[in-house]
Parts: sequence; structure tokens; C-alpha cells
Amino acid sequence: MPKIMAINAGSSSLKFQLLHMPEEKIIAKGLVERIGMDGTVMAIEFDGEEHTVHPAINDHADAVREMLAFLTEKEIIQSLDDINGIGHRVVHGGEKFSASALMTDDMIAEIEKLSELAPLHNPANIMGIKAFKQVLPNVPSVAVFDTAFHQTMKKDKYLYSIPYEYYEKYGIRKYGFHGTSHQYVGERAAAMLGKDEKDVKIISCHIGNGASIAAIDGGKSVDTSMGFTPLAGVTMGTRSGNLDPALIPYIMEKAGKSAEEVIHVLNKESGMLGLSGFSSDLRDIDEAAKGGNERAETAMNVFASRIHKYIGAYAASMNGVDAVVFTAGVGENSITVREKVSRGLGFMGIHFDEERNQTRGKEAEISAENSPVKIFVIPTNEEVMIARDALAFSGQQ
Amino acid sequence: MPKIMAINAGSSSLKFQLLHMPEEKIIAKGLVERIGMDGTVMAIEFDGEEHTVHPAINDHADAVREMLAFLTEKEIIQSLDDINGIGHRVVHGGEKFSASALMTDDMIAEIEKLSELAPLHNPANIMGIKAFKQVLPNVPSVAVFDTAFHQTMKKDKYLYSIPYEYYEKYGIRKYGFHGTSHQYVGERAAAMLGKDEKDVKIISCHIGNGASIAAIDGGKSVDTSMGFTPLAGVTMGTRSGNLDPALIPYIMEKAGKSAEEVIHVLNKESGMLGLSGFSSDLRDIDEAAKGGNERAETAMNVFASRIHKYIGAYAASMNGVDAVVFTAGVGENSITVREKVSRGLGFMGIHFDEERNQTRGKEAEISAENSPVKIFVIPTNEEVMIARDALAFSGQQ
Repeated sequence: MPKIMAINAGSSSLKFQLLHMPEEKIIAKGLVERIGMDGTVMAIEFDGEEHTVHPAINDHADAVREMLAFLTEKEIIQSLDDINGIGHRVVHGGEKFSASALMTDDMIAEIEKLSELAPLHNPANIMGIKAFKQVLPNVPSVAVFDTAFHQTMKKDKYLYSIPYEYYEKYGIRKYGFHGTSHQYVGERAAAMLGKDEKDVKIISCHIGNGASIAAIDGGKSVDTSMGFTPLAGVTMGTRSGNLDPALIPYIMEKAGKSAEEVIHVLNKESGMLGLSGFSSDLRDIDEAAKGGNERAETAMNVFASRIHKYIGAYAASMNGVDAVVFTAGVGENSITVREKVSRGLGFMGIHFDEERNQTRGKEAEISAENSPVKIFVIPTNEEVMIARDALAFSGQQ
Repeated sequence: MPKIMAINAGSSSLKFQLLHMPEEKIIAKGLVERIGMDGTVMAIEFDGEEHTVHPAINDHADAVREMLAFLTEKEIIQSLDDINGIGHRVVHGGEKFSASALMTDDMIAEIEKLSELAPLHNPANIMGIKAFKQVLPNVPSVAVFDTAFHQTMKKDKYLYSIPYEYYEKYGIRKYGFHGTSHQYVGERAAAMLGKDEKDVKIISCHIGNGASIAAIDGGKSVDTSMGFTPLAGVTMGTRSGNLDPALIPYIMEKAGKSAEEVIHVLNKESGMLGLSGFSSDLRDIDEAAKGGNERAETAMNVFASRIHKYIGAYAASMNGVDAVVFTAGVGENSITVREKVSRGLGFMGIHFDEERNQTRGKEAEISAENSPVKIFVIPTNEEVMIARDALAFSGQQ
């Protein structure tokens, strides 16, 4: 039975899941943090128990070695040969990658070229890929891109209305993110509708700390709310989403900031944090709103209103919708957000059920029984998508 | 029978209409251009004839004097006492003005304070107001604001998801523009539906060189696509509309421009001009697209797609819509744009009629006979709205 690792590498962290495939059963999962710093933590969970150790770890290759040694010692794997494939989350695949790809040296170089488009993420993702190639040189490594699923968008959706040469020369266009998650919940939603995904129109609302909405028609992404970067689209925990571009020089002048500093504010101090003034966490803000905090209430309404409008916009893009899906941290758990987003869409056949909505963290239908358009809660599972693609390249299918 | 002037003053121009009220009949209209420059042109039209003269005009007060002298000489008015009120278009009324206002010195000072929000427009509009107060000190001058109609938007629609103190300290919020036009066509649409405007939901698409969409529920603006400035929202002739804010520092770096220069590009070299590469005029681009120019075709699709999505979004905001209205230069005249925008909305009861759409520049219903939601073409008339408000303050009603 093939064993596949799904990897999400950050600049000083390495998150992994080890899965039995094609059963998609998690054997172990864990996280190494503070790589190359003092106080490294490796936390690994299996058989319902969490083990925390503090090995000395200088780089990502060390992290891979320690993690594999731990799994071998605990007899989760018998030897390193037990690992049949590795799937790596990579944030930006640009226009080059419209599907997952086997990581040869050439392909790694291609991803490096795209680092300019995702300077905070791609270099870290590449560190993860290189670490595994160093420690397990004979195991196929596969990159699974956050952007790939959205490469089916048409030009009228992905082009910005700016000088066309900016697209040709600088690659400026909408790429979209969270593609692996949107694809996963889109497939699950089709299954829950009892239909082939070719025949359904889905609006997927991935609402976590980052948030994006996607229109999925016949299994293909036709539009999504994030853009050239993950700053665009709806209101997020600390990100502004879309705004009038003329605000940037205005804020620069008024607040005495550089353009980069304004973008930093829009990425880190805006969104729900900026609106509420005290938290980026929807749970805190929801609680405050219910306790009578007016700014918190307004923040909740801004947040929901932006998503609500995208549902209308994307239904227009597809000339209809069969199901709206809520996923990721907030989407799976916030009863308030789902209610505020879903109410007031009866004109397009979306009828919300308050009682069914009292659910968290598991697959559920929260639309009214007679609702022509279904509303689903579907926990996302990017790791399983990554593992599936890695399995496909492992020679084990 | 009261005579009212409707004025639109630019920095070196003065556009006017003289109307018989309340009949709303145009007696004369005209334009003075190149005020304070060589080669001033004054073109005035009445009784179906256009007269062009070249007086020496140093400032806006001169322009008013020459224009009134011409109207008196031609016996359009018997004397200056014939003018009962003057309505001035003013672009920005900020949060101060949610309705038209009589221009006292204090009120003019308030509009001056708002010049920072509309540096290209308010100072010119004020020049027009002051010129008329100088020449006709006893005739009431009334300011009619582009922003006023949208002051009914709620906080969850007008707040940006940025630090709240930017709203409090710098007045950064969505204001919206074209309010007078949206209000006019909203009222006409209700009349064409045979209903009280309190009972209808309208989506108004003002599509000219600038373009904005408004959601009007019960006669009140609940949302609109322009923002803090008229750069935001949909694709326009030369303006980008919304985009990922992170693009601004990216373009600054790549193209070696300042933030102000990038905003200039987004205002003047983007939109349809940037996409097509050869024109900001929809007629040229439409023709090129029909002749097989692929980039022109893409530009048309981008343009229509953005408006199409707003129709879905605003229907979601209002939980339905009774009529979609097309107005302004492109909206009244572009058969292609109306078709591209209106098709593919059957899911929400909008059914387009290709044959009825073969119309330009006059009120028409272009939805299919059985369409639950109507689609109207309604030529806008901001001057008549300005004259109505000026009449209300003239003591002549």
C-alpha cells in the first residue's frame, strides 16, 4: 500500500502528513517549527497521540531527516524506502503550471523564476522540495500549485484593465490562489449533489484567515476573487481585499508612508483587524458584536456583505449556480458568517436554514429542504489533493 | 413661467442649459470653452440653430456675462431678472451634503473644504458658483452634488476594510459618483414599470467614458461601483476600475514610476485604451472587434464582463431586481455592450431581446416580452435634475 507525504514548507517551518493511498488515510502528521533557530519544535501525531521533541535542526534537510528518523524509530515506516512519493504545496505556478508537475532540476528552476510573483512563499516551498530531494533522492517529488486550478480562467476574467504590455512584459494578471482547496470542495460538492462535476456550477467560499471565492463551472475554475496576489478580493482577517487604487497615494500622503508601507498596512493591519480595531479573529469579533460592540457588528457586516456580493457576481458569470460551499476555518465553523452571507439570496433560489446551520467542522447541507440551490459546509483537505497528485507520479497506481 | 439655468463648470469651461420649469423644456443650451486662454469659443444653441462666437473671456464671470448678454441680445431672455434660479453641478459633497443646498458663503466654504477629495473638479465647480453670484447676486444658486444620492449607502457598503481611523481622520470611504444620473434613470425606470419607486429595485448602469453601476432600492442608492474617487469600479474608457492594490508598488518598481504616475496611468492610459492599445472609444473598439481584431474583442469582453458581474452582485445586495437600466453615451448607444452585458442572466429572470435592442439614444425596453426583470435604455438627463433642485430653492414653485 503506497505511502505518500504531503508537504507544506514555510521559510522556517515544515508541515507534513503521511497518508496511505489510495485510501487517503492519515498515518501520521506533524509540524517542525523554528528551523534554523533556537528552540526548534517538532510535533508529530499518530495513533491519537501527539509527541513533541526538540531536536537541533539547522535547515529544511535536517528537518526532513529528523522527521523521517522519528517515524522510523516509532515504526510508522519500516525504512525510508516506504515513502513512495512526496507532494509539495507550491503557492505560485504562474502561467507555466496549469497542473501538478514532477520536480526535475529544470522544473525547480522554473518555480524559482516565479519567486518574484510570490516572494514570501515560493522560495520557502522550494526549500522544502530541495530538502526532500537531498534526503530521498530516489523518491519522486511533485509540486502542487495554489494557482494551477485557476489557469482555466478566460482572458476576459484574468486580465486587468491596464496597459496590455504590463501583462506581456511583467506577467500582471489575475492568478488566483487556494486552487487546491477550491478544487477539492468543488469535487465534494458535485458528489453531494449526486452529479458529475461536469454538469454542475459551484461557488466555493474558502474563508479562513485568507479568503477567496471561486466560480467553478463543469469542474473548471472560471473566476476567483484573489488576484495578482492574495491581497485582492474580499475582506480578510488582516487584508483589505479590493479597493479604489487611488487610495494608495492618498494614504501615502496623509499617513506619511511609502507605497510599500501602505501595502504592508493593507496586508497586515487591515481587513477585520482594521475595521474592528482589536482582532483579526472572527470569533472574537462575532462575540464582541453579540455583546453590543457596534464597530464589531459593522465589521461582521462588511465581511459578509463582500462575500454575499461575490455570490451574486459569480452566479452571473456562470448564469446560475447549483451549490454554494463554505470551507476553511471560518467557513467551516462560523455560524454567524454563513448566516449573514447566505440570507437574502432567495431571488436566485438560495434558501438558508437556520437550524441546519448549527454545525461546525463537518460536511453538512445547510440550505432549506426545498432550496433549488444547495448550501454546503465542506471541510477542505488540501493534503489529500496533494497526496493524490503525488501518487499519480509515484508509479504506484 | 420660471427660467432656471443648469450649470456644469470646468476649470476652463462653462456648460449651460436654460430651461423653462416646471415644463422642463430646454430654451437654450451652450458651452463656453478655453476660458482665460486664446481662442475662446462660445457655442449656443436655440430654436434649432447653433451660434458660435469668439468673445474675449478672462474668467468664469466674464463667461457668464457674455453668455447672458448673448441670450438677452437674441431675446431668449428679456433681462437678467428673467433668470429665477441657477443649479450647479458639484462633483463632491463628501459626507456633508446628502442633498442639494443653497449656496451661501458658508456653504461655498464647505465645498472648498471638500476640494481635497476632488481636486480636479470642486475648485472648478466653485468658480462657476462664484461667477454667477458675482454677475447675478440676487438669484439663488444651488449646488447639486454627484455624491449626494449615494449618501444613503449603509456603513457595510461604504467602508473600506482598512484601519478604521483612516475613515475617521481622512474621510476615506466609498462616496460614489454619477448620483444625479442614477437618481434620474431610477425614477424613470420606476415610471416605466408603472410602479412607485418605493416599491422597486433598480440596477442602473451609467456607462459613458466614465462608468458606474448603482443599486437603487426603494428610490435610495444602496451601493455603487465608484469609490473614494471615480477611478474605482468597472472598466472605463481610460480608467482601470478596481484592481489588486498590490499591483501599484509592483508597477512602480517594474515600470520605474512614482505612485502618482502609476495612478495617472490607471486614470488616463488604462481601461479600454490600455486593453485595446489603440482607442478609448467603444465604437472604434467594437468595430475593430467585428473586423477580427482579437485584442479588441477581448477588451469588449472584459468591459462587459465587469458590468455583468456587478448586476449579479447588486441583485444579491437587494435580494432581487425589477429592472436593469442602461444610460449615458455607451449605455444609450452601444448595441454590442448591452447585448454582452445582458445575456447569460436568465437564472435571475433577465431575458434579453436581440431585436428590441436595435435602438439608440431613446427610451426603450430591450428585455423579452415575458422577462420578469425588465431591461431599459433610458437617456440620462442630469440637467433636468439640477434644474428641478434649483427650482425648489427659487421661490417660484
